[in-house]
Amino acid sequence: MATIDREVTARVVLQQCLHAKLQVKPPDEDSEAEWTEIQRGMVIYLCFFKGSTKDVIPKMVVSFSVSSVLNVKLSETDSGKHVSVVELPGDILIVPQATLGGKSKGRCMQYHSNAGKELGMELYAQFISQCQKELESHPSWVEAGAVLRHGTYGNRQVLQLNTNGPYTHLLEF
Amino acid sequence: MATIDREVTARVVLQQCLHAKLQVKPPDEDSEAEWTEIQRGMVIYLCFFKGSTKDVIPKMVVSFSVSSVLNVKLSETDSGKHVSVVELPGDILIVPQATLGGKSKGRCMQYHSNAGKELGMELYAQFISQCQKELESHPSWVEAGAVLRHGTYGNRQVLQLNTNGPYTHLLEF
Repeated sequence: MATIDREVTARVVLQQCLHAKLQVKPPDEDSEAEWTEIQRGMVIYLCFFKGSTKDVIPKMVVSFSVSSVLNVKLSETDSGKHVSVVELPGDILIVPQATLGGKSKGRCMQYHSNAGKELGMELYAQFISQCQKELESHPSWVEAGAVLRHGTYGNRQVLQLNTNGPYTHLLEF
Repeated sequence: MATIDREVTARVVLQQCLHAKLQVKPPDEDSEAEWTEIQRGMVIYLCFFKGSTKDVIPKMVVSFSVSSVLNVKLSETDSGKHVSVVELPGDILIVPQATLGGKSKGRCMQYHSNAGKELGMELYAQFISQCQKELESHPSWVEAGAVLRHGTYGNRQVLQLNTNGPYTHLLEF
C-alpha cells in the first residue's frame, strides 16, 4: 500500500503529448472559438487548495530538492531515455483544472478544499509567469523554439490530446 | 489545505471524453497496430498498489456508500446536468496506467509502491470483468449500445483523446 500522510496545497497531473490543442476562448455570437496548441511536450493539469500561498510556486516550478514540473524526468526522447521537458526540449501546455481538487461524498464530488476563485487565479497566473521566467533562462529550450501555452482560468478546458503514451503522473506539493 | 491521511491501494484518474482511441497492439513486422475506440463517455486511468486485493474491486466499481467509477456523477448531459457514466449512458475506456503509482525522488519517479506485474494484471482483469458484469445489469446502458473497451496491460498506452472539457478527477481507494 502507498501510505499518504501530509497536507497538500497543490495537485498536478502531468501527461506527455505529441500534440495538444486547448480552447482559450469559447465561441460567441460575434466570434469563433479561439484555441492554443502545442506540439511534442507536456500537459500540466493544475489545481490549488485552500491555504496555498505563492511560496509553493518555486517548489512546483524549479525546485532542485524535489521533483518540480520543469525538472522531473517524465519526457521520453526518441531513444527512449527519460529527461525533463526542458531537456527534451518540449512544449508545455498549462491547464487550470479545479476538478482535481474534488473529494467524493456519496455519488457526488465536492470541492470544499479548493482555493477560492481569486486566490486560485492569482496562483495560476504566478505559476505561468514563473514557468516562463525559468524556461527563458534555458538557452537550449529557447533556441529550440519550444513554447509555453496555457488555458484561461475559469473557462471550460475543451482539450484535444494526441499522445504516444500519456505516461500519466501525479505530483502533490 | 487538503489533508490526506490514509492508505491507498488503488488510484484512478477519470476524464470525460467525446472520443478516445487507444492502441491495444503495437505494430510489428507482419501486422499494423490494432486500436480500440469509444465515443462519448469516460476514460479510466487505473493503477494498483502493493497490498491491493480483489476485495477493493467491488468498492471501485459498484459501491453505493462511496464514489465508485460507475456511479460517481462525473458525466455531463447535454443540458449540463451531472450524472454517472451509466446514467449518461456513455462509453467507457479503461487504461492501465502504472505510472500513476509513481513517487518522486529527486528528479526521478520511482514505482516501489506499485503492485507487481502478476498481481497488477490479475486485478486489472478483475476490474474489467466486474465493470462489464455491472454494466450488463443496467438495461438502459446496454440498450443504448454503449460499450466498454480497455487497453492491454503492460503495453504502451498510445492514446488519442478528444474532450469537451476533460473534467479530470482523482479517486483513491
